[in-house]
Amino acid sequence: MSVGKFIHDGASFLIQEREPRRPLYNYLWNDECVSCFDQFGFGSTQSRADGEFRQLAFGERLLFIKEKNLFYAANRNYDRLPFTSWGCEVGLGYQKIVSEYQGLRVSFTIRLAKKGSVELHEVEIENVSKETHEFALVTYLRPFINITVHVSYGHAEKADGFEGIEYSYDAFHSPFPHSHIFYATDHKVKAYEASVRNFTGTYGDIRHPEALLKDHLGSHPVTFEGEYAGALEIPLSLRPGEKETIHFVLGLSTSHADSLQKVEKFLSKQAFQEAKEVSTHSQKEYENAFYIRSGDPYDDALLNYWLKRQIDLGKSWGRVYGKGFRDIMQDTACFVCFDSNLARQRIIDTLAYQYENGNCLRQFDPVFDHPYFDGACWIPQTVLSYLNETADTSILEEIVPYYESKKNGSILDHLEKGLEFLLNHRGKHNLVLWGGGDWNDSIDNAGIQMIGESVWLSIASVKAINDFEEILELTKKETRLSHLSEKKQELIDAIWNYGFEEDHFIYGYNDKGEKVGSSESKEGKYFLNPQSWAVLAKIVKDEKARKLLSKADESLLTPYGYMQNTDPYTTGDEGIGRLSYFYPGLYENGSVYNHGSAFMMAAQLEAGLSKEALHSWHMMRPDNPSNPNNGMEPYAIANMYIGPGCPFLAGYAPLSWVTGTAGWIYHNLTEGVYGIKPTFAGLMIRPKCDCIEKEIVIHRRFRGENYEIHLLPQSLDSLTCDGVSLKIDEPLPLTGDGSVHLVFRTIKKAVN
Amino acid sequence: MSVGKFIHDGASFLIQEREPRRPLYNYLWNDECVSCFDQFGFGSTQSRADGEFRQLAFGERLLFIKEKNLFYAANRNYDRLPFTSWGCEVGLGYQKIVSEYQGLRVSFTIRLAKKGSVELHEVEIENVSKETHEFALVTYLRPFINITVHVSYGHAEKADGFEGIEYSYDAFHSPFPHSHIFYATDHKVKAYEASVRNFTGTYGDIRHPEALLKDHLGSHPVTFEGEYAGALEIPLSLRPGEKETIHFVLGLSTSHADSLQKVEKFLSKQAFQEAKEVSTHSQKEYENAFYIRSGDPYDDALLNYWLKRQIDLGKSWGRVYGKGFRDIMQDTACFVCFDSNLARQRIIDTLAYQYENGNCLRQFDPVFDHPYFDGACWIPQTVLSYLNETADTSILEEIVPYYESKKNGSILDHLEKGLEFLLNHRGKHNLVLWGGGDWNDSIDNAGIQMIGESVWLSIASVKAINDFEEILELTKKETRLSHLSEKKQELIDAIWNYGFEEDHFIYGYNDKGEKVGSSESKEGKYFLNPQSWAVLAKIVKDEKARKLLSKADESLLTPYGYMQNTDPYTTGDEGIGRLSYFYPGLYENGSVYNHGSAFMMAAQLEAGLSKEALHSWHMMRPDNPSNPNNGMEPYAIANMYIGPGCPFLAGYAPLSWVTGTAGWIYHNLTEGVYGIKPTFAGLMIRPKCDCIEKEIVIHRRFRGENYEIHLLPQSLDSLTCDGVSLKIDEPLPLTGDGSVHLVFRTIKKAVN
Repeated sequence: MSVGKFIHDGASFLIQEREPRRPLYNYLWNDECVSCFDQFGFGSTQSRADGEFRQLAFGERLLFIKEKNLFYAANRNYDRLPFTSWGCEVGLGYQKIVSEYQGLRVSFTIRLAKKGSVELHEVEIENVSKETHEFALVTYLRPFINITVHVSYGHAEKADGFEGIEYSYDAFHSPFPHSHIFYATDHKVKAYEASVRNFTGTYGDIRHPEALLKDHLGSHPVTFEGEYAGALEIPLSLRPGEKETIHFVLGLSTSHADSLQKVEKFLSKQAFQEAKEVSTHSQKEYENAFYIRSGDPYDDALLNYWLKRQIDLGKSWGRVYGKGFRDIMQDTACFVCFDSNLARQRIIDTLAYQYENGNCLRQFDPVFDHPYFDGACWIPQTVLSYLNETADTSILEEIVPYYESKKNGSILDHLEKGLEFLLNHRGKHNLVLWGGGDWNDSIDNAGIQMIGESVWLSIASVKAINDFEEILELTKKETRLSHLSEKKQELIDAIWNYGFEEDHFIYGYNDKGEKVGSSESKEGKYFLNPQSWAVLAKIVKDEKARKLLSKADESLLTPYGYMQNTDPYTTGDEGIGRLSYFYPGLYENGSVYNHGSAFMMAAQLEAGLSKEALHSWHMMRPDNPSNPNNGMEPYAIANMYIGPGCPFLAGYAPLSWVTGTAGWIYHNLTEGVYGIKPTFAGLMIRPKCDCIEKEIVIHRRFRGENYEIHLLPQSLDSLTCDGVSLKIDEPLPLTGDGSVHLVFRTIKKAVN
Repeated sequence: MSVGKFIHDGASFLIQEREPRRPLYNYLWNDECVSCFDQFGFGSTQSRADGEFRQLAFGERLLFIKEKNLFYAANRNYDRLPFTSWGCEVGLGYQKIVSEYQGLRVSFTIRLAKKGSVELHEVEIENVSKETHEFALVTYLRPFINITVHVSYGHAEKADGFEGIEYSYDAFHSPFPHSHIFYATDHKVKAYEASVRNFTGTYGDIRHPEALLKDHLGSHPVTFEGEYAGALEIPLSLRPGEKETIHFVLGLSTSHADSLQKVEKFLSKQAFQEAKEVSTHSQKEYENAFYIRSGDPYDDALLNYWLKRQIDLGKSWGRVYGKGFRDIMQDTACFVCFDSNLARQRIIDTLAYQYENGNCLRQFDPVFDHPYFDGACWIPQTVLSYLNETADTSILEEIVPYYESKKNGSILDHLEKGLEFLLNHRGKHNLVLWGGGDWNDSIDNAGIQMIGESVWLSIASVKAINDFEEILELTKKETRLSHLSEKKQELIDAIWNYGFEEDHFIYGYNDKGEKVGSSESKEGKYFLNPQSWAVLAKIVKDEKARKLLSKADESLLTPYGYMQNTDPYTTGDEGIGRLSYFYPGLYENGSVYNHGSAFMMAAQLEAGLSKEALHSWHMMRPDNPSNPNNGMEPYAIANMYIGPGCPFLAGYAPLSWVTGTAGWIYHNLTEGVYGIKPTFAGLMIRPKCDCIEKEIVIHRRFRGENYEIHLLPQSLDSLTCDGVSLKIDEPLPLTGDGSVHLVFRTIKKAVN
């Protein structure tokens, strides 16, 4: 982890390498906006206020220190000056860059307001030298105010009524209500600039802005401008040891009056305090829900904070570029153990994007309605997770409308409609139709004529039926779906008869009747997910399952995880879709797509391959020593590692955060490996014995109870709770008293 | 003209100021693509190949010279090094940047291929020192290959089959056929980079690219990249006095095979030669059509070359961002004297965007169909210009389809349909309906409910009828439009009765019945165009006309031309449209919108205010000493000078080239001031006597004849052609022998 280290017991990460292979990102968000910032505090804030989908600001957020005609960007250090120190603290809901140079220590903390599309910047400057410093702080950022192509509507100048700049874009028939932006500070502004051009110079660059070559900024009003900026000059004088804190707020407003009101509201101690409390509260809640001391501080940091954070982002903002139905369902399945009320609401809200025929919209906000057919198969698992966590069966009665329909139905109806859709859309091999695609978004043309069939989707449907049957059993409900178990068996038979080939399941049949993922295929002869999911769906078990998965090891394993498929496609194939046009080794075309590796890990746990499962996880971890230059944020999970099919980028992780992997890994580790398993009857403790090598302590909140669970490798299996001996398969007692229950689970070590 | 000077007798302009107030642009184009380059050769090339509308490349086009671990950008000089010389030659169809530093003289010429979406770069490096130079030329540019949002389709690496880089984007269901880009050279490439990141460094910048800090470029293949680049390293060794010429081609192709073929075709002497000949041919044609020695070299450069060039761009590419019906009609009205065949075809092609009801589409390529109502009023003037230039009455019989209709009609029909539309869409004051707008694009909501009436459009309709009546008279045609002259009189009466107010014409009545451009209006009490057009439409004449125009002088005149209106709107008004939301002083909201100033100049000429007309022109000229810091290209006409309503940018011209002003100015000067007036009967010589102060010599081609015309201020009016005396109102004889006819027109100076 050459780029830095976890601090605050894992709740923060300190980036120490200023210029790593690629920028390292942190996401901040509230209900209205979402930001992505790198180690300098550069990035974008996207707002969804009142149905908008627009930027508040993007690119640089700079703090120049200007003293005696010399200047430098304290958070960025463009010129690679010999700073005394520089570091970026990546926190839960904040980004804090601290640097020291020539006796000034500058700390820059970015947060979002608790509510609203507002960035809060806190700058603290301390004179750590023995001399007085007379200098100016000059900030710089780039608000996005040109909301249409007409630059004539835009205008910015020194604000009337607060210290700072107000930007306006009072357009005719404006597409967005937020036509104003305020950038305000609680200090006296000496001078300002409001456009990139006026700050950097027409031919200048941001590294050495021409405005800083003069005594003061030029304070030019701006209109007819392509690129707006916000630069505020604040003169400061600090005696040795003295410290000054300057606050800034940047936000959307609908008018000048609204700006005035919001500046007053957000440029307050209270607003900054509230924003801080959001972080503290998140951290506390994460810890309360599940807290582990596994002996591996890296895993602990991820399990205690950062996987949760990533899941939290997923359940709130989907994949950020849009809210995916399957993505939110999966993240929510996991999020349920942190905040079951919010998870409940999220399930209800998301099911409103299921069509009346049972299929689901691929993505909303914005809508993407290519007819993917897998949406329904993700619902039972999520509802089952909710029931196991809460035992709250009332959710099944909740009434939710269907998408683009005047009808609605209970959540039980929604579950049934979904399974009906899958079972009623089958092809000539009796397998589920591929439609516009399944989990594999990029095989988007194999079944578009509604002829092709997906073996993977058939397998996933079996798993969905399994989960649904478990829901019925737990909740003692009847289903109106007739002959469900027979139909499931028919599907399993079809999977074996037409979907299995010597040593692996194929991916499917395309519209032309060609096999995909078969040894007969020209390229893409073998895919990962049909194998892992056949195990998850319990279509193969035990030794057969292990054999099936060992074939995946042979075919797909790299030092940094499992490729999605091999060989990657090198020739575009209309009978596959966009996947086959991707450059080999990228995304679903032969990358180590971590979501798939996480499914594989789950399958390995299911098949009793616990050590292999842990190994799968260790390969994926950003600190994998076999893939040292992967470019990853150590505190997040990558979407993919580029596969060997692209030798010049192999192992590199260009994207992170925005992936369903985090949720699956969280479940795999907490429930699979450590065995802290919520069930309808109560919390069960079922650790994988061969993974527990020393005492592990876990705090788990469950239905209002708090358990302190000690997993102890010893000479026998035993379970006690508050000193009372239990059967090892027995759920922990629910006392309803809210106190902390001490649980000991001794584990008999397997003899190797 | 502090930024540089005209050279080559005005056919080129040498920019000598490297960093003027704003970049100075030159347009290059062929039938398939259009480029806009600044003084460094930076800019964009947009292609329309096979219906695409996309970039080939944008941003920097750099030539780094790298010698002994030092490097600099020869065409850009980022570090403001003490270059021996630097200059950019702006040519008719080329941009040539020449600089000299440390003994190397580097010349960089950019052209477009004669046909196709291909840039041709010629680099000539000469050792002008007394020592041998061993160095590398490293080029850099930014091709646009990510034609969708999926970066996984893109790929670039060293080309197979030519020296250079090939970029590919073989996307699934690609929206564009041109999935490849080639960047090739006729020299051996030592090394390359294909992405911005690999060239500048992830945290670097283009001024000091990290790739140049190493011995050689890294030659990295690229995929999954947001920003592609093309950097080619070519080692060179030049002895004193030695010179090397290196050619590069950058272009679109549909496949690797197509790239190979195109590289062979375009990286040839022939292709470079042909491209050069396009410029030479343009220049020759411009000179042959009309060539003046007025004694004012600035006017001569503009009249002989640059106004033509701007009109030429307009008639080919409309307003570049889209092809405007009215824009192309106006430019073609003027272009007819340079190439009447092409103009004929352009009229035919453009009339295909007239609806069957007579109204016209506002813009095609791409289509913009907001219901502007003025399209039809521009047709008669253009057809009349064509007839006056050619006497080719057959154009009226040409059959042209109507837009979005299966019907078609002769051009005479099109003219009539247009007038019918205007006459049949009238409101309660009997004025022509405003509809979605007229010439003033930004009053787009005053009549959208089809109630409001435009006085200006009513006046323009009178002018259109005048022109149409002249067409009928010249061609001895009958019209099926009954009672046309009575209807015209009705319209004129309505204009006087409801459109005139004390000392000016109002702009109109909006849907709410409110007067626009009236002393009753809250803002925008007075508009320029209704006054100037009332004169052009001969609704007011002589002394009344002069009085009408003098009111415009009082109200709208600034030191750099006539504002469109006063006061500029400061409050958005739904009853006006977007104009009233523009920042005051911008565009149609109170800028000196030069198109309007050019109408005013035409009106002044019509009203006998020749000196005032010339003054109007001199205020507009980029060298106007009263507006020295206007930012303009001296060789182009500005779209607008920002008006006094925006004090902090007043006088600045942010945009140029893309305006209908050039055509009007060209007509105003050549026909109005110098009086070289094509008429159906032949070329007439009707100079404005008070504008001719010394001998002026003009070469004019007209219907295959070539006239060398001398305008001589003397003691009497006389006209001779080849020594034969003519009446001064007589057209010059048409001999059909193609020889040069010597014409003398003496002008009796008015006694002041």
